[in-house]
Amino acid sequence: MTSTLGTATSGGPVAPSRSRLRPLGSGEVRLVDGFWAEKQELNATAIIEHCLSWMERIGWIANFDRAADGTVAEQHSGIEFVDSEVYKLLEAMAWELGRADDPALDETYRSLVARVAAAQEADGYLHTSFGRAGQRPRYSDLEWGHELYCFGHLIQAAVARIRTGHDDQIVDVARRLADHVYVEFGPAGRDAICGHPEIEAALAEFGRATGDSRYLDLARLLIERRGHRTLRTTLFQGSDYFLDDTPVREAGVLRGHAVRALYLASAAVDVATEFGDDELLDAVKRQWDNTVARRTYITGGMGSHHQNEEFGTDYELPADRAYSETCASIASVMLSWRLLLQTGDAKYADLMERTLLNAVLVSPRADGKAFYYANTLHQRERGSVPTEGELSERAEASLRAPWFEVSCCPTNVARTLASVSSYIATATDAGIQLHQLADADITTVTGAGVPVRARVRTGGYPYGGDIVVTVESPDVVEVSVRIPSWAVEDAVATIDGRRLDVVDGYVRWSAVFDETSPLRIALPMTARFVEPSERIDAVQGTVAVERGPLVLCLESVDLPGDLDVDAVRIDTTVGPRTTEDGAEVLLTLTGVAESSWPYGVGAPTRAAESASVRLRPYANWANRGPSTMRVFIPRSPS
Amino acid sequence: MTSTLGTATSGGPVAPSRSRLRPLGSGEVRLVDGFWAEKQELNATAIIEHCLSWMERIGWIANFDRAADGTVAEQHSGIEFVDSEVYKLLEAMAWELGRADDPALDETYRSLVARVAAAQEADGYLHTSFGRAGQRPRYSDLEWGHELYCFGHLIQAAVARIRTGHDDQIVDVARRLADHVYVEFGPAGRDAICGHPEIEAALAEFGRATGDSRYLDLARLLIERRGHRTLRTTLFQGSDYFLDDTPVREAGVLRGHAVRALYLASAAVDVATEFGDDELLDAVKRQWDNTVARRTYITGGMGSHHQNEEFGTDYELPADRAYSETCASIASVMLSWRLLLQTGDAKYADLMERTLLNAVLVSPRADGKAFYYANTLHQRERGSVPTEGELSERAEASLRAPWFEVSCCPTNVARTLASVSSYIATATDAGIQLHQLADADITTVTGAGVPVRARVRTGGYPYGGDIVVTVESPDVVEVSVRIPSWAVEDAVATIDGRRLDVVDGYVRWSAVFDETSPLRIALPMTARFVEPSERIDAVQGTVAVERGPLVLCLESVDLPGDLDVDAVRIDTTVGPRTTEDGAEVLLTLTGVAESSWPYGVGAPTRAAESASVRLRPYANWANRGPSTMRVFIPRSPS
Repeated sequence: MTSTLGTATSGGPVAPSRSRLRPLGSGEVRLVDGFWAEKQELNATAIIEHCLSWMERIGWIANFDRAADGTVAEQHSGIEFVDSEVYKLLEAMAWELGRADDPALDETYRSLVARVAAAQEADGYLHTSFGRAGQRPRYSDLEWGHELYCFGHLIQAAVARIRTGHDDQIVDVARRLADHVYVEFGPAGRDAICGHPEIEAALAEFGRATGDSRYLDLARLLIERRGHRTLRTTLFQGSDYFLDDTPVREAGVLRGHAVRALYLASAAVDVATEFGDDELLDAVKRQWDNTVARRTYITGGMGSHHQNEEFGTDYELPADRAYSETCASIASVMLSWRLLLQTGDAKYADLMERTLLNAVLVSPRADGKAFYYANTLHQRERGSVPTEGELSERAEASLRAPWFEVSCCPTNVARTLASVSSYIATATDAGIQLHQLADADITTVTGAGVPVRARVRTGGYPYGGDIVVTVESPDVVEVSVRIPSWAVEDAVATIDGRRLDVVDGYVRWSAVFDETSPLRIALPMTARFVEPSERIDAVQGTVAVERGPLVLCLESVDLPGDLDVDAVRIDTTVGPRTTEDGAEVLLTLTGVAESSWPYGVGAPTRAAESASVRLRPYANWANRGPSTMRVFIPRSPS
Repeated sequence: MTSTLGTATSGGPVAPSRSRLRPLGSGEVRLVDGFWAEKQELNATAIIEHCLSWMERIGWIANFDRAADGTVAEQHSGIEFVDSEVYKLLEAMAWELGRADDPALDETYRSLVARVAAAQEADGYLHTSFGRAGQRPRYSDLEWGHELYCFGHLIQAAVARIRTGHDDQIVDVARRLADHVYVEFGPAGRDAICGHPEIEAALAEFGRATGDSRYLDLARLLIERRGHRTLRTTLFQGSDYFLDDTPVREAGVLRGHAVRALYLASAAVDVATEFGDDELLDAVKRQWDNTVARRTYITGGMGSHHQNEEFGTDYELPADRAYSETCASIASVMLSWRLLLQTGDAKYADLMERTLLNAVLVSPRADGKAFYYANTLHQRERGSVPTEGELSERAEASLRAPWFEVSCCPTNVARTLASVSSYIATATDAGIQLHQLADADITTVTGAGVPVRARVRTGGYPYGGDIVVTVESPDVVEVSVRIPSWAVEDAVATIDGRRLDVVDGYVRWSAVFDETSPLRIALPMTARFVEPSERIDAVQGTVAVERGPLVLCLESVDLPGDLDVDAVRIDTTVGPRTTEDGAEVLLTLTGVAESSWPYGVGAPTRAAESASVRLRPYANWANRGPSTMRVFIPRSPS
């Protein structure tokens, strides 16, 4: 097959044609040994297989076979956007194949692509729920049909294939599909958009990856069309739900359905970048600032409402009904990464770290075979254990569930873990930048043409914090390493015994590097109390505990006698003692005040008893059976 | 027309065939002059007309005309349960006609009944959304179609007509409809229930009102059928949503959709009573206790989730996303009233008062032409003013809206206000009981046959609290007056200068009464701080202020410079000063802490400034334009 690919055949999920920082591709960053390598291994050995076997078993993959043989109108499994789950899995597999040679996975991948390809129609259209006799007509339900949304995920799967060095069947399918979309929705097509943004970022990246500017033009057009209230609203979903209330360039904050908002904002950064549209870029930066300052959980999670999976209003961040959908956290990482590439501002990398380690990694169970969809920060009831082989109806199980009726999160986790090495480091003309502290071997070339090899070892980060960066370069390069915001005060960075300052969130050193002079950074990995803003009503009078980049939590299984987590108060006159994976704090076992009317009751009679109790990483909770849990712990009255 | 009515042709919405307390009918209790009479006047002069004109204008009444002339399948206005709004309005009109002679309303009422009656089919079925050519078949969507739900409201409208002394067209329509339901869903019919409980309580009451025991049998059958997971669930609505997860007699607490739960529980009390089923009655009493202790807002509002309009888990009572639907509050009053009649326990009357004065009365605007559907306890944004002539999409407007796509609340308010005199007083063999402190003239006969006249004047209750009860009786009767729980300690009740004790929430005195010896009760109407239970996380570190039975709130329009309500703290070292309609408290104007990340920021720099500020009744808020508001006010650190 003749390649018609454009500039980029390497790079991660995002490769802007111009940016302050150039993202390194999966071939340039190799995660080794440590924390993230283990997560990628879990993905490779458990999560991808889990997703595949579920979708085979419940017929979501068979939908494509039925579409190909003309029987899908008689029997279609799952809701109308299950195609997208297969595409996200294909994306995950593509990144995984780029990361590690695996002939069995390669064969599985190719066979799955072939089944998808067989369902594509002559004019490029590809969707198993629409357009055939007995199905609803194509594009008859743009608000809810998710057709373009599914196309977007197929196109992103193709981008992953291109960026890992292939131009094969999925790319061809995506090209025909994107061309079809251009005809149908382009300048000469219908003046319409999809209810769920996704196609926009996919088209922008496909344009970058293939060099075909029509796809970028179409992405821009779809973004500009949004915000003019053309989507039909319903009783419970208004224009804001669809982000169709205000054009992206005019909005001040993210709102509406969190995943939609974040996918759209990500695409807006792509379009702003490619077209030099600074007004649009500034709008998204403003939205990010306001959203992070007022509408984000301590874990980085976004979207407080179960109702419509929406952002709340400013400071409306209840811990005990935190929706904080896994996919929204992933989308937030997508957005922050794009803004980091454009600005080099450490705050974006900071939020990415917080979000990845806490709000994203809380989703998969330790064995990779069950997931959280919504991620509460306060579990009041132990709840029940989901049945392993059963589909979960809701995103509200107390323990992780193996699969959901709407199962967007597991495949999103899979593609994110498979490509996570892409979010670690960047290069500029001057040198390289390490944004995430991960054990990795990096081999790249600066924009000025200087080859650089870097070996990053973290001493067990995010648990340990003795970072050693060994660099080799034949010429002068600048090496920048991000110091997380919580560590800026106390981190000690040195090279050859010389102390380095933290400037704008990074330590930087220019030199001809060799392995005898590693850059060493000692991070203060001690646990600390973190007070929420007074403006967040839902957590007044509480503190959280963080250790390094990890948000900790109290689980009832760690309490004496498996007490209810709501029956304790934390004594903040005694600082938290740092432990191997979390902290130990002094809790007063208050008992639980009960009365027939819960107002005007005064404080409960407090037992004098107190206990030293372990807090552990929030992301690891609920791996030891049903438990109650809280991140924000009420303080003992002083 | 020959009357086939049973025993009760007087009495309010509920008239058990046996109960500890006999409810007095609308003919026996006349509200005069004071607070509640004004609310009834508002209903008569504004709310009923408002509901009528809206439903004429948007075609919900015309649906019946179209059903009669065979064109409704081509054009039906509104969602599938709008019939019920017309029926609730008919119920309101019936009570209003029973209360006050009004020839114009009488004519409007009869004409509206005739239009409804014309739509009834030959076999008694009556619904404008189902069963005709071009419509979905009857009973093809029991989960969501709301057919039996609508029937229930028609039947309750007929009960109101019977209880106000008529046996005319609506009663005939209801009888034919109820007979149809008995055939379709009775012992020989299909083994099924309706997704939304309502028919159960309606059938029970219709059985009581007509003396036809089949209707009671059917109510019992429908209740027993529930809780066995026969209703089809959806992605977001499980069996608990429908109260179909556990039989009523086995459940420990109310859960799921709040209005459904409370209508069902009300019906269960009716059935338990009529069939002497103490196990079922005890189950509902237990559910009430647990729900009030753990799942009820300080206003009496129930149901914290917007998602599915559901109860939250125990103590999950966020102020800033309080759903607290108006209809749930009304349903709670219905349930408590039934339990009060069966037990005589003051706690039920207490919750009724709290709920009526705070959670129900917050719904209608001062002019009766706009309503709250959901009732938050903390409004963070001023929001916009709904357009007067426009339907509101959602139940989330910041100001009251004139009408909603789902507009269950305005007509529910109308029927409740029209019949509110029924909830004031009861009689027993020994005497009469005054449960709600309202200016009223009461004329009744005890169970022992002694005629009693009572004149209750409250000195402006709920603002004033100098209660004078003047009774005349030719023989010894016992007069009981409820002392609200907040007043039990300090209320001073006397007769002829003699001090009376409060026993089990009531003062009681037996005598041959004459007008020279009124019972006098001085209630402590001073404002007071009320601390929420520590278990309610969402309001930790705050206090509420109550004055008499009224929950107060802080509105930004009462703050200096229209400051944000979130920019103040309350100084609880200075007690609240009682004012004419609320209280004055000392607030510290703290300003608002803002930062780019709302965790780990420490306390804001506090301005030294403080101000004495008025708090006013929560039920009256948002009558002075867009405003921010809060019931629970964060305390200044001590």
